[in-house]
Amino acid sequence: MKAGPLNLITDVPGIEVGNSSDATVKSGSTVVTSPAPMVASVMVLGGAPGTRETDLLAPEQTVPAIDAVVLSGGSAFGQDAASGVMAALAEKGRGFAIGPARVPIVPAAILFDLLNGGDKAWGRFSPYRELGYAAAMAAAGGPFAIGSVGAGTGALITGPGGFLKGGLGSASAVLPCGATVGALVAVNALGAATMGEGPHFWAAPFEEGDEFGGLGWPAGPLPPAVPRTKLDVMLETPQPLASTTIAVIATDLTLTKAMARRLAVATHDGFARALWPAHTPLDGDAIFALSTGLRPAPDDAAFIRLGAVASAVMARAIARGVHAATAAPGDIAPTWQQMWPAATAR
Amino acid sequence: MKAGPLNLITDVPGIEVGNSSDATVKSGSTVVTSPAPMVASVMVLGGAPGTRETDLLAPEQTVPAIDAVVLSGGSAFGQDAASGVMAALAEKGRGFAIGPARVPIVPAAILFDLLNGGDKAWGRFSPYRELGYAAAMAAAGGPFAIGSVGAGTGALITGPGGFLKGGLGSASAVLPCGATVGALVAVNALGAATMGEGPHFWAAPFEEGDEFGGLGWPAGPLPPAVPRTKLDVMLETPQPLASTTIAVIATDLTLTKAMARRLAVATHDGFARALWPAHTPLDGDAIFALSTGLRPAPDDAAFIRLGAVASAVMARAIARGVHAATAAPGDIAPTWQQMWPAATAR
Repeated sequence: MKAGPLNLITDVPGIEVGNSSDATVKSGSTVVTSPAPMVASVMVLGGAPGTRETDLLAPEQTVPAIDAVVLSGGSAFGQDAASGVMAALAEKGRGFAIGPARVPIVPAAILFDLLNGGDKAWGRFSPYRELGYAAAMAAAGGPFAIGSVGAGTGALITGPGGFLKGGLGSASAVLPCGATVGALVAVNALGAATMGEGPHFWAAPFEEGDEFGGLGWPAGPLPPAVPRTKLDVMLETPQPLASTTIAVIATDLTLTKAMARRLAVATHDGFARALWPAHTPLDGDAIFALSTGLRPAPDDAAFIRLGAVASAVMARAIARGVHAATAAPGDIAPTWQQMWPAATAR
Repeated sequence: MKAGPLNLITDVPGIEVGNSSDATVKSGSTVVTSPAPMVASVMVLGGAPGTRETDLLAPEQTVPAIDAVVLSGGSAFGQDAASGVMAALAEKGRGFAIGPARVPIVPAAILFDLLNGGDKAWGRFSPYRELGYAAAMAAAGGPFAIGSVGAGTGALITGPGGFLKGGLGSASAVLPCGATVGALVAVNALGAATMGEGPHFWAAPFEEGDEFGGLGWPAGPLPPAVPRTKLDVMLETPQPLASTTIAVIATDLTLTKAMARRLAVATHDGFARALWPAHTPLDGDAIFALSTGLRPAPDDAAFIRLGAVASAVMARAIARGVHAATAAPGDIAPTWQQMWPAATAR
């Protein structure tokens, strides 16, 4: 599975990404948009989701396409990020036409990062409306930063003995037909991205090159057990239960809304392959699937392949997000690279 | 994660399993039942499901508990198996009480095995009503056969160069609190259970002892790519697209219907970890979650652990089902043990 030139979701023609973050709040927002409306759907499989405008993404609902998707920190306060994105898009004349009115359609999902060491005393109104606006104004094709940026700024996951920093991840793959599939994910899962006590990523079977360290499988015998101990650490420690992984999968293949929904379902398998556990009652795991429609629709075989590859790309994006996390003042958890400097220096 | 004494779903106190099969038809049915009604729900994540009585399993629906679940071959014809199970349970006086009437509540899911080399010229009515009745009359606690039996009799999955026999799998785990979680699965996936060209199971990280061969990881470097070639083989070969993995996850912990639904969601991650790909548009992947209620309800932490362990147990059950498949006259695909005799002899 060959990655695209940037190994980012912006390898998908038409896809633009913008990030914003606030170092003091230790949070931020990430926008995925496109010059033209995108066919979209969503699948929510976590038990504690925080979403906005997802009902209109059901295949039978009227709105045919959307203008952007927002992933944001801030728990339910982060829903304001979509308002900021709407404002930015309205300034550009974007939106679903209802008579002379234009309504930018901006589904969103949030993750819980309220107890991550950042300053959340923001007064009456949260900063997410402005963070969403800034992310939308920054949106562009081409390279963008992953790791401790955007919606992944303050993300936490489980590591040996406690928390590990999560992050914003992205990856891409070029399909045999020449189309591209790309993933973007803010990794803040209840579970762990690494196996046992070591640095090896669950997503290892899908790694391209050394895109998240190139460690491969653990040497020697398998870890003696599934990392239930990591879960135990998190559950038995009076630390907050940081949780929720939210993501976007995008392709330039033409999809219907129903196909986009099936693609979102298939892509959740990437969460299952990269995180342990995923889809818990305390995760709000959700995936948006987007089509820019710049290539023809896939046939049945190509569509199945798209789903399979999408799940692998999502698993890679998750590991890349964790691998790319960087330290910041006031952090309450180490990064992967701080936790395993020898593996990093390899 | 310690397996129960039988490493079968019948390690869960109260759970009984019965199998029936027809060697000529190369198909069969599997029943999961209990002496008392079970709280249950379901999650369907495949794109081509065949199910019966699943709407009543939604948490908000009235029926509080069910009498049995049926997994069956036969594609939509296999729904008759539930009628046979109803007849058997009615003879025992089982059923939901509506005035003096008793209606056995028997949700079911089927898999497609109509093009597997068996004789499907069964005349006007399919044999599944009788297969269901026989499976229900055979239901008992204790040991039962896995592999090419029951709903897994004629199951096929993808292997190197074409099909490989699937099968009926089962596994169990004892939780730290002493409760048990057990999985039963009929593995007939579009995807593969093994990595690349070799015999190693995707579920390897979760294997207990040598329950499916003890091969562990592949030696040396990782397979050069995800096994897209297996998918390609299947998609580009004019063989029928055998598909659908259907399963039951059961526990003696007391669950509400809503909790059972979340358990079914979490357990789908076991499909993702053991099959590549899973949850495609041509799979009818569905998981029923059952509670016999013989132990108290889990607290939040134990419930999260239950879901995590359930997904691992399901991954193990899938590999065990494929590993245990046996050859039969007229087969159109080899078994895992025929394909890799050296790995088997190990």
